[in-house]
Amino acid sequence: MGRQGQIHSRNIASMDRAELVCVSDVNPKAKSLPAVEGVKFYLNHSEVIQRNDVDAVVIASSTDTHEEIILEACSAGKHIFCEKPIASQLEAIDRSLLAVKKAGIKFMTAFNRRFDPSFRKVRALVEEGKVGKPHIINITSRDPAPPHMEYLKVSGGIFFDCTIHDFDMARYLSGDEIVEVYATGSVLVDPEIGKLGDLDTTMILLKFQGGALGSINNSRQAVYGYDQRVEVFGPGGCAVAYNETPTRVAFFDAEGTHTDKPLYFNTERYPESFFGEMEAFVDCIIHDKEPLVTGRDGRLAVVIAMAAKQSFEENKPVQIDL
Amino acid sequence: MGRQGQIHSRNIASMDRAELVCVSDVNPKAKSLPAVEGVKFYLNHSEVIQRNDVDAVVIASSTDTHEEIILEACSAGKHIFCEKPIASQLEAIDRSLLAVKKAGIKFMTAFNRRFDPSFRKVRALVEEGKVGKPHIINITSRDPAPPHMEYLKVSGGIFFDCTIHDFDMARYLSGDEIVEVYATGSVLVDPEIGKLGDLDTTMILLKFQGGALGSINNSRQAVYGYDQRVEVFGPGGCAVAYNETPTRVAFFDAEGTHTDKPLYFNTERYPESFFGEMEAFVDCIIHDKEPLVTGRDGRLAVVIAMAAKQSFEENKPVQIDL
Amino acid sequence: MGRQGQIHSRNIASMDRAELVCVSDVNPKAKSLPAVEGVKFYLNHSEVIQRNDVDAVVIASSTDTHEEIILEACSAGKHIFCEKPIASQLEAIDRSLLAVKKAGIKFMTAFNRRFDPSFRKVRALVEEGKVGKPHIINITSRDPAPPHMEYLKVSGGIFFDCTIHDFDMARYLSGDEIVEVYATGSVLVDPEIGKLGDLDTTMILLKFQGGALGSINNSRQAVYGYDQRVEVFGPGGCAVAYNETPTRVAFFDAEGTHTDKPLYFNTERYPESFFGEMEAFVDCIIHDKEPLVTGRDGRLAVVIAMAAKQSFEENKPVQIDL
Amino acid sequence: MGRQGQIHSRNIASMDRAELVCVSDVNPKAKSLPAVEGVKFYLNHSEVIQRNDVDAVVIASSTDTHEEIILEACSAGKHIFCEKPIASQLEAIDRSLLAVKKAGIKFMTAFNRRFDPSFRKVRALVEEGKVGKPHIINITSRDPAPPHMEYLKVSGGIFFDCTIHDFDMARYLSGDEIVEVYATGSVLVDPEIGKLGDLDTTMILLKFQGGALGSINNSRQAVYGYDQRVEVFGPGGCAVAYNETPTRVAFFDAEGTHTDKPLYFNTERYPESFFGEMEAFVDCIIHDKEPLVTGRDGRLAVVIAMAAKQSFEENKPVQIDL
Repeated sequence: MGRQGQIHSRNIASMDRAELVCVSDVNPKAKSLPAVEGVKFYLNHSEVIQRNDVDAVVIASSTDTHEEIILEACSAGKHIFCEKPIASQLEAIDRSLLAVKKAGIKFMTAFNRRFDPSFRKVRALVEEGKVGKPHIINITSRDPAPPHMEYLKVSGGIFFDCTIHDFDMARYLSGDEIVEVYATGSVLVDPEIGKLGDLDTTMILLKFQGGALGSINNSRQAVYGYDQRVEVFGPGGCAVAYNETPTRVAFFDAEGTHTDKPLYFNTERYPESFFGEMEAFVDCIIHDKEPLVTGRDGRLAVVIAMAAKQSFEENKPVQIDL
Repeated sequence: MGRQGQIHSRNIASMDRAELVCVSDVNPKAKSLPAVEGVKFYLNHSEVIQRNDVDAVVIASSTDTHEEIILEACSAGKHIFCEKPIASQLEAIDRSLLAVKKAGIKFMTAFNRRFDPSFRKVRALVEEGKVGKPHIINITSRDPAPPHMEYLKVSGGIFFDCTIHDFDMARYLSGDEIVEVYATGSVLVDPEIGKLGDLDTTMILLKFQGGALGSINNSRQAVYGYDQRVEVFGPGGCAVAYNETPTRVAFFDAEGTHTDKPLYFNTERYPESFFGEMEAFVDCIIHDKEPLVTGRDGRLAVVIAMAAKQSFEENKPVQIDL
Repeated sequence: MGRQGQIHSRNIASMDRAELVCVSDVNPKAKSLPAVEGVKFYLNHSEVIQRNDVDAVVIASSTDTHEEIILEACSAGKHIFCEKPIASQLEAIDRSLLAVKKAGIKFMTAFNRRFDPSFRKVRALVEEGKVGKPHIINITSRDPAPPHMEYLKVSGGIFFDCTIHDFDMARYLSGDEIVEVYATGSVLVDPEIGKLGDLDTTMILLKFQGGALGSINNSRQAVYGYDQRVEVFGPGGCAVAYNETPTRVAFFDAEGTHTDKPLYFNTERYPESFFGEMEAFVDCIIHDKEPLVTGRDGRLAVVIAMAAKQSFEENKPVQIDL
Repeated sequence: MGRQGQIHSRNIASMDRAELVCVSDVNPKAKSLPAVEGVKFYLNHSEVIQRNDVDAVVIASSTDTHEEIILEACSAGKHIFCEKPIASQLEAIDRSLLAVKKAGIKFMTAFNRRFDPSFRKVRALVEEGKVGKPHIINITSRDPAPPHMEYLKVSGGIFFDCTIHDFDMARYLSGDEIVEVYATGSVLVDPEIGKLGDLDTTMILLKFQGGALGSINNSRQAVYGYDQRVEVFGPGGCAVAYNETPTRVAFFDAEGTHTDKPLYFNTERYPESFFGEMEAFVDCIIHDKEPLVTGRDGRLAVVIAMAAKQSFEENKPVQIDL
């Protein structure tokens, strides 16, 4: 029942086609969070999974607990919506996805940005053939401020914590597979981040199976807010998603023209996408469809992040094993 | 429990500081509307008003029933949130507001647009002194499509049905009083509207107490969606609110650069403002404050609409009796 | 050889299809202006008109001298490009245009804004039928700063000095005739302007023959620069021209997003239109075509400005005698 | 007297502080080009250089002739404005710059984009400290259409023909040195380009001395016109230059909102920068200042382009020898 757990709980509770049956957290204090007020609460996730009236589970616990919960849910035949990354070790992901396959349940990875209205529209312009076969994909993804040092220590590093979303976005927008990655990074925002062996600024170059080329740039600190822009260029044109802002007001004065900063962060920028991914999960269960973000999608983002880390460490391009 | 009643019901139900106790509609079918599922339902509004556990009532019935319900709620000492216009006759408004005064209850008029984030920001730029004392106020307010003829017949005419919002907006943005109005209009969208004695296109010129000048233009049909823009110009600069769009995507192709149409209509464009006005109502009750939109505001918008109608009919400017 | 005379001289000198033969000014100092360095100079305009190698004359002297020069040029059979207004008295304009007609020469009025690329595009969208028959025309026309008091004293008042351009723009954009005008105005920028019996802020409402409605707003002082925007709305859509800026740079910082102010004034904003009108004049002579801005256009703008002045003084709408 | 020679001739001829004395071209037909009508013409460039009344020469001939002309101009003590690249071989550049040094003349390399108003403003935001020390630089540089095959054969390849401008832009905007480059490329626009051993789509990753990271992407064909955007991100914010368009008109219709395509190509997009670089050259001579683009700048862009080519061929990052 961390930040994501609360978001998912509220979204499920507000749906007509789904019901929030119960929630679980190892911390008893979570019981009294406003998001789950009046909802049946367990300290042990197993009690959720074992209930007969539960059809599907949402896993938003810490990454190191995912595999255990996935395996347990598979045994119980419950559909699974799992936060990213599925696991930090490829073996754990593979064991999890094998269990999913055997259980025949739906498994969806939580790459919420695929459900953002702007990015969906860019993807639609590609899918409808208006952009044409992509030639260039550029992704800018900058946080407004670094997370706490405590979080950074266990985050897995910027490629796993931040760029992983962008690797998935690059695959989503292009409809193509990344076959090679070259990653660079610097410590320019805060030397404390460097002391952790992490980076706060990155630039990654991608090659796609179809010949397209891509770039991703990340920063842990954009003073103007959450900078989330994408661009797909092809023979038919170029689709660009600019940042969202709180209002559409412009103020003209003696200094210039002034408009809003981008929306501050996840909670402000992506509410539609958090709702949309959960709706898509409910939908794939009700209509027995392939989830819009698969376990393979979740696995590949981790594979690419691993390759990026290796590329940075060895300062050379690294092939992706698809 | 028409469109507005449903919107208000959902918004109240989702609030932490307010509770949706019960609803009422003369039509028994309203009982099974999704917006009020599981909520106590009455066919007679008096049963709502008489409940001891009801502190405040929201009046979203047809305009001709407002006075009766207001008087009844005043007698019962319930706070009132009332849809605009309060009544179509000035006498009825005056009787209603007198009863409100005597009862000592809170009364708020539903000019939701005052709670739109963009318009609030324009107002804030004026209030903070950045624009300076307003010189010019321009309001564009165009619907995507005319309502049904049946609705138009009882709408009271375009000045009362559409422009009334803009008269209030002009007062809100300027923080000033309109002292004179000159109104023109044409039938350019649909001759059927003209046959009803109504207009579908208007241009109104306003003079304010402080010397500012204003314009309002309305159309019943903007093929590109709901066109809701405002502008306040003063010695410090000019604050402009542009239209909201579903996404921030631009597509560059061989024909040009293409972005979204504005959001389609009320429901798409103004959800924050509908929620915001209800929050403000709850707030003024809980903290015993003056409502942000008063009965006088509701009355004046009607007075100005009446003057606009007279101005159009006589083709001359008409003074406002403040 | 005032500001406009110099602009026209430079533009003619740079054309392949025209030659700057000679110039004239009552002030001998004008001879050494950079714009006309090395060009034959006369103190008396008659010497220009009488030269055999002169085919056409550009009149950019003070308004009260226009009629005399026009009549003289007509007698000599020279084509005429004349700055606006043709004259301040209708009788003088009528005498001038009658002489033009009898002489069979080309006469073009200098409404340069018709040749601005943005306004031409708005007009093209109307002409091509994309906007459809206009319903609403809005024109914003605000100067960056008031002219000197000495100039204001002889300017003829804001309707003749500023709004005259907008009256012509309204006719140009709509392709329709203005049949009624209602004008209001305030002194909000500088009380000294009021002491001259002039206004510094105006709002004018227009009715067109085809039923369209229009508004014009003027201010003598927009602290953010020259605010020159137009909008034509019709059944097919809405064409809007925003302000031009020196660059397309946006700067995102902790306060917001900042872009340029509009270009400062005439010289910065309208160079293409000054060149374009002169090219059009040369073109109509070479190809024996009707000038794109006629003497009638020049006359009507004055007629409408007179009606606006009367409307303001009497506070009632005034019909235009077409 | 090719395209650039004509542009420079016109610009010099229109300046107050410089005079176009004579021009030269191996092709006698160049004599009758409109740009140099009436200007003294030579078939041999030496005759230009040897004239006593010539203070400075502009070299806009084919790259392989640059060295010879530079050495000759140095011997004659004439200042030099030289089109990019100075030469295709580093040795030739070094010989040229050594001669320049010995002669004590001014030498300016023609990186015109440094004089574009938008890019200058981005640079100013960096120089003034508003962006802060750059963290990320992104450059998009796409041509509207590939040049003729004949040109492509002698162009030196995309890194030398296109990206060279962007390498210089990256150095200019950042005020920092590029120390490493990793370059990728594809043939996605036209297989004929691939047959020449060239690329039509590139993505290059840059590392700067100060730790900043950069990307450049190029395409030989953007169907929407000349796509020339830059972005510098730092701790203070992000400065972005968007594309210039012919007008500022937006058209709202039932399909969406439509604005102009970017300006088509060099001639449309960069006239101010061509004029500005020549003004800067004249200025550095008159005021005996360091040219704003030096021979070292011209040399380094070639060094980086060579490194990019090597990086692409070996698929690994390449260090720059500063």
